[in-house]
Amino acid sequence: TLKWVYDPDPKKAESFRKAYEATGVRVAEREEQVLDDPEVQLVAAACVTSERAALGIRVMKSGKDYFVDKAPLTTLEQLKAVKEAVRETGKKYMVSYSERLQSESAVYAGGLIQKGAIGKVIQVLGMGPHRLNAPSRPDWFFRKKYYGGILCDIGSHQIEQFLYYTGAGDATVVNSEIGNYNHPEYPELDDFGDATLVGDNGAMGY
Amino acid sequence: TLKWVYDPDPKKAESFRKAYEATGVRVAEREEQVLDDPEVQLVAAACVTSERAALGIRVMKSGKDYFVDKAPLTTLEQLKAVKEAVRETGKKYMVSYSERLQSESAVYAGGLIQKGAIGKVIQVLGMGPHRLNAPSRPDWFFRKKYYGGILCDIGSHQIEQFLYYTGAGDATVVNSEIGNYNHPEYPELDDFGDATLVGDNGAMGY
Repeated sequence: TLKWVYDPDPKKAESFRKAYEATGVRVAEREEQVLDDPEVQLVAAACVTSERAALGIRVMKSGKDYFVDKAPLTTLEQLKAVKEAVRETGKKYMVSYSERLQSESAVYAGGLIQKGAIGKVIQVLGMGPHRLNAPSRPDWFFRKKYYGGILCDIGSHQIEQFLYYTGAGDATVVNSEIGNYNHPEYPELDDFGDATLVGDNGAMGY
Repeated sequence: TLKWVYDPDPKKAESFRKAYEATGVRVAEREEQVLDDPEVQLVAAACVTSERAALGIRVMKSGKDYFVDKAPLTTLEQLKAVKEAVRETGKKYMVSYSERLQSESAVYAGGLIQKGAIGKVIQVLGMGPHRLNAPSRPDWFFRKKYYGGILCDIGSHQIEQFLYYTGAGDATVVNSEIGNYNHPEYPELDDFGDATLVGDNGAMGY
């Protein structure tokens, strides 16, 4: 059951409500209305990236699980705070890595690997070309403090796939680069980034 | 004009002579016969990789240009000696990087880049899968001292393409790995290898 929708922008909340009218979803006037409702078990969110951790911690502390759009956070400090809150509350901080979870080919690849169809995965090479679509993006997308840079915003898809497909529990970044080659009008945008990873099981990723 | 063929194995030399009979090519009994012939302007060779530099130096010192199969050498000492010989003799030490020079798609890609069809090349990602074909390969291919390891033998194709397509004059290897995952019967074989490069013009390659 979908119970509440909340957005600081009432127009967005209302258009969401209309789209899901059949579920009976209601617009909350304040975030607390959702967090204080004991019936709510899971909160799904997609706010500005740098604010996702703080919201997630509030959600978990209110006794609910959290499902958040990728990337789930932007700094190591946020990561540490989230881990502490997960330990404290016993609640879940789940991330929607759409390029693996909502892509048929990516799900199929995972199934093939689990069946052993290609043997042991020793390397994953992931590319994540994206259109800039500047006019349709909100301003925060072009401010590093909010979106976290290209390797956080986009590269984390490929990193998550590397971990999942190779079965690595953790990995070391042995090299990474970012660049803004062609967008001087957005000085805080990275239009290129890459990273070379070595997993704790020896697998390698680029 | 093709004048001489020489191989330590007379059977190989003879089968080459037969294949190119129409050119009037003759089998040389000793390497010196070729190097001492003032009519010869270019020597093309494909001996064991670790011996290519020494042969090339002999060729250039006899006043001829050298055209050698890739990889052109296996150690930095050989590279230094070759550079010295090139300076001394003024002769050419050319390398047949077949995966760029003899591949229609690779030549076409180079043409597109030169025409500016894709703008400035900021990244080149090259993969070089090869079949092992163990039975048809000579023993030296499985001894690192002779073939130089997978990044020398195969990876140098991708490295050469990176330099050519990006126009970089030189590059730094910021990370590289080799592994033998599945061929314990050939302990000196690398069946996986990769390298991350940054060019002197900022381009990056994997």
